[in-house]
Amino acid sequence: MYYSFAVQFTSLRLRALISLIEKVQTEAQKDNIADATILDARLAPDMLPFSRQIQIACDNAKGMASRLAHQEAPRYEDTETTLDELKARLEKTLDYLATFSESDFADAATAEARFPYFPGVKLVGAGYLVTYAITNFMFHVVTAYDILRNMGFQIGKADFMGWEVEFHPDGE
Amino acid sequence: MYYSFAVQFTSLRLRALISLIEKVQTEAQKDNIADATILDARLAPDMLPFSRQIQIACDNAKGMASRLAHQEAPRYEDTETTLDELKARLEKTLDYLATFSESDFADAATAEARFPYFPGVKLVGAGYLVTYAITNFMFHVVTAYDILRNMGFQIGKADFMGWEVEFHPDGE
Repeated sequence: MYYSFAVQFTSLRLRALISLIEKVQTEAQKDNIADATILDARLAPDMLPFSRQIQIACDNAKGMASRLAHQEAPRYEDTETTLDELKARLEKTLDYLATFSESDFADAATAEARFPYFPGVKLVGAGYLVTYAITNFMFHVVTAYDILRNMGFQIGKADFMGWEVEFHPDGE
Repeated sequence: MYYSFAVQFTSLRLRALISLIEKVQTEAQKDNIADATILDARLAPDMLPFSRQIQIACDNAKGMASRLAHQEAPRYEDTETTLDELKARLEKTLDYLATFSESDFADAATAEARFPYFPGVKLVGAGYLVTYAITNFMFHVVTAYDILRNMGFQIGKADFMGWEVEFHPDGE
């Protein structure tokens, strides 16, 4: 379960984000939309912009895998200013996730997660995965997509899922 | 794993959506915002509105649990026109999820999922959960929240998570 979610599940989502950004790049070039406009776009004035949603999705993925494998995650600086750089960060995170194998998670059930912004809260193993990690990761993945949709880009649910199939409109 | 994700994980998310709707109801009453305005709100003209995001999140949750438990899910009609009715649908789904116990998922690994809108695609057990079900469910849960944020409601990440704690701004 730990490998399936901390590596396979997250990798699928990050890969879909790369394809999504590539589709957006093609459209943005055609319509003369600057990268900065996309990186700074947000759904509400007090929500984080697209660039931060991608950065945090990457950090959540590497944090989840490293924490459950009792390893130290590499630190990534938040310096991306272009879509290409955001894609590179997603690729770098995928490369990091690819270093894990199923056996790295043998002791995942005892892995502890503490958070500077949740004083007194300690989450352990499956509890961390089920009550926090997947939800938080998916929050940023979906919000990144929602920002692009809100901007009017011609992307759809199939792009979000990362599947080469057509979705029924009701599936949206 | 199946029980943890198909019942515990989804129940946490649906419960958080109920609290979120309750917070929005208080604010909407104060600001004279009609339920219909909220139910019809969407992030893009060709995306589904808030009401459908909630209905589908419920359907995804009951579909996931029933499918993995080799059971037939009850059918819910999509007739909700108020926030109270959407809350009732979330409650009804939670009641349904509460009927499952861990042993119901003993044969989950062989459960098959087919979709009318994915001809030829068959997903099985953990593959269904990891590549499709959790992602699709979370898509609708997060998009429902994002619609409310985009409307300007004073809700935040802690409400989304359903935790009674303050989030660090960077956690958004």
